[in-house]
Amino acid sequence: MHDPDARTEAANRDAVQRLFNGQPRLVDVRPAIDALPGMTRDTVLTSGPPLPWSEYTGGQRQAILGGVVYEGLAPDLEGAEKALANGDVRVAGCHDFATVGSLAGVTTASMPVLVVEDRNSGHRGHCTLFEGETKARLNYGLYDQDVQQNLEFLADVIGPTLGEVVRSVEGGIPLRPLIERALRQGDELHSRNTAASLLFLREIVPALLDLASPHARALTDYMTSGDYFFLRLSMAASKSTADRAYDVPGSSVVTAMAFSCREFGIRVAGLGSRWFRGPLPTPETHRLFPGFTADDIEVMGGESPITEVNGLGGLAQAAAFPLQAYQGGTPQRMVERNLEMYEITVAEHPTFRIPFLEYRGTPAGIDARRVAATGITPVMDVGIAGRAGGQIGAGCFRAPLQPFLDAAAALDATA
Amino acid sequence: MHDPDARTEAANRDAVQRLFNGQPRLVDVRPAIDALPGMTRDTVLTSGPPLPWSEYTGGQRQAILGGVVYEGLAPDLEGAEKALANGDVRVAGCHDFATVGSLAGVTTASMPVLVVEDRNSGHRGHCTLFEGETKARLNYGLYDQDVQQNLEFLADVIGPTLGEVVRSVEGGIPLRPLIERALRQGDELHSRNTAASLLFLREIVPALLDLASPHARALTDYMTSGDYFFLRLSMAASKSTADRAYDVPGSSVVTAMAFSCREFGIRVAGLGSRWFRGPLPTPETHRLFPGFTADDIEVMGGESPITEVNGLGGLAQAAAFPLQAYQGGTPQRMVERNLEMYEITVAEHPTFRIPFLEYRGTPAGIDARRVAATGITPVMDVGIAGRAGGQIGAGCFRAPLQPFLDAAAALDATA
Repeated sequence: MHDPDARTEAANRDAVQRLFNGQPRLVDVRPAIDALPGMTRDTVLTSGPPLPWSEYTGGQRQAILGGVVYEGLAPDLEGAEKALANGDVRVAGCHDFATVGSLAGVTTASMPVLVVEDRNSGHRGHCTLFEGETKARLNYGLYDQDVQQNLEFLADVIGPTLGEVVRSVEGGIPLRPLIERALRQGDELHSRNTAASLLFLREIVPALLDLASPHARALTDYMTSGDYFFLRLSMAASKSTADRAYDVPGSSVVTAMAFSCREFGIRVAGLGSRWFRGPLPTPETHRLFPGFTADDIEVMGGESPITEVNGLGGLAQAAAFPLQAYQGGTPQRMVERNLEMYEITVAEHPTFRIPFLEYRGTPAGIDARRVAATGITPVMDVGIAGRAGGQIGAGCFRAPLQPFLDAAAALDATA
Repeated sequence: MHDPDARTEAANRDAVQRLFNGQPRLVDVRPAIDALPGMTRDTVLTSGPPLPWSEYTGGQRQAILGGVVYEGLAPDLEGAEKALANGDVRVAGCHDFATVGSLAGVTTASMPVLVVEDRNSGHRGHCTLFEGETKARLNYGLYDQDVQQNLEFLADVIGPTLGEVVRSVEGGIPLRPLIERALRQGDELHSRNTAASLLFLREIVPALLDLASPHARALTDYMTSGDYFFLRLSMAASKSTADRAYDVPGSSVVTAMAFSCREFGIRVAGLGSRWFRGPLPTPETHRLFPGFTADDIEVMGGESPITEVNGLGGLAQAAAFPLQAYQGGTPQRMVERNLEMYEITVAEHPTFRIPFLEYRGTPAGIDARRVAATGITPVMDVGIAGRAGGQIGAGCFRAPLQPFLDAAAALDATA
């Protein structure tokens, strides 16, 4: 094939087919050290295209420091600063360890992670557990006694109990059918996971009843106390699916979108694990909890846009009108934005469907070349952190154009 | 007040406020004979404005006969015909026994009913249990060995176990919060109860784990095998709420809509339990299961439009776009129909809200006078039975105009 457009098109068809063929299922929950390839006791993972330690600032820096102390790698935050500065502890990017992180995304060796395996390829994607409705969340830039106790509860009770339940289910728990159903129940599987969390609960109730674990009640309370339990599963499922599309020569299909406190970055199928970096995303609409203003917003990173890579989140907004109460905007604008995304994707998802659009498949397979050509960048539904730590709201953000221009140019250079 | 319009308006405000103040909660599940006021062993209840026994035909007649045999009031269907003809068994209308019935709505003494109580007024509404996804359902006009065994399973296992669970929950299970949430998850609480059924499951999981009943697994399987468990709760909750609005002199707010195999009827708040009758509803859109045509449709009755009386179902269609796959139509038409209902209702529901309409309250309190004046009649989302028995599809039906004209005239006559 000498026609470069035809070659890109064929490669993109291949890449997107890999996304569409993903069959993620939750097969285990276990400590990161046992689950993540290459993980070590002295590694702290965090969100976004990796940076030297000195570049991490604000809440993301605080979260990393907290992670070092939580893991017992330093006695206190001051000691953690030293251990990171002298290299006793190394910081690395989640995406390079087959995992994704929410907000700051700090993942340390003893933290339990959801283990999601693609049935067809065996590719695994992981994600830590939701820290709960509490304001005291490491990944929103806080570390204190409450945060530590909550993380210990996840590691000692929730992780092991959920792991026991999941391992008792023959073949694991298929996640794709739950995602498909949740799209018919007002979720877009990024900033809204209300129905999906219930659907998951329904799947494990029989196992919960059979196991009669002393912690079954605690696990149920944890899973049902908020509406975000399933987000981590949506992320791990999307990661296991997206990783199937690495290394499709010539393909401009996006395989990762992530950001740190400083930069937004993407990967494309044709260029493996190379990051293309640019400025941080900008809010298009957002809604803040009472008492906060836009001045309070601080970006601490995030890898949940892996769901958009998989045709969910911002690319499925018209399935989730209730989101307007959480992140602002109007239903009409949500529909317009969702329709706009068809212009920068290579296909329509065969089973992720939007009821309001007469069950049209979600726009899927973000094409860096189309983004570069049209100037339309992907939208992402994300949680918003505050300068003083903690979540202060949510919003719909727009990716920067630069990484897509650079990826398209790099693909040209290799053509 | 000498201005009749002003008097009607004040009465309607009163009536609709009673609908809005309803706080239904599930407090028990027990046999109809123990729960329904006035119920006797030799009574068979059925849907719609009551008719003499000889007037019941087709599937509704078959269901009544089956109910007589199931209850042990006759040895077989032939004996049941005799018992009904000679008055040994009497047929009566569900609505007069504080209960509502799905489709044929047959309710006999030993069948378990959901007991829903309004916290404020103490009014109780009831409904039998969903017979499951099976085709073998008494209330779709069938009675055979399978139907009988299924009804026995409901009476011997499901009813008692669910009753035990419900009674163990202090104060019962509040249903209104579940309905409000389900409206944000793609349900309209009549023909779509997918999310509500899950939300109810979530409420009782802790009690299920604590009770450790040997039937917990069977109950869970029953509740989660289909998506319609909650419809009966939505109906009983709506009945307990609507009954609060009986006897508001001068009010033209509708307090019941129901049909038999022959007639559709309504009640209005100003005229107590008097029925205003008219021809059967007509399908506006419908979708039939593969292999069936419109010629196969048979009306066997139904009282599930009590949900429309309560501002749900057809009056909340724009909350439930996935319904198009079940009962036909387009999202645009669903929105248009939903908006049209604001023209014949006296208020917007304060807590039943539609995300797509920017969280506008559902049109609530159907006003017989406005229906009479505009000629716009209520829409209802209903299941469709077939001539050979069983469900063959679902559709959106339009109520006839006559009962509303007659009710308005009767109100004039009493003014």
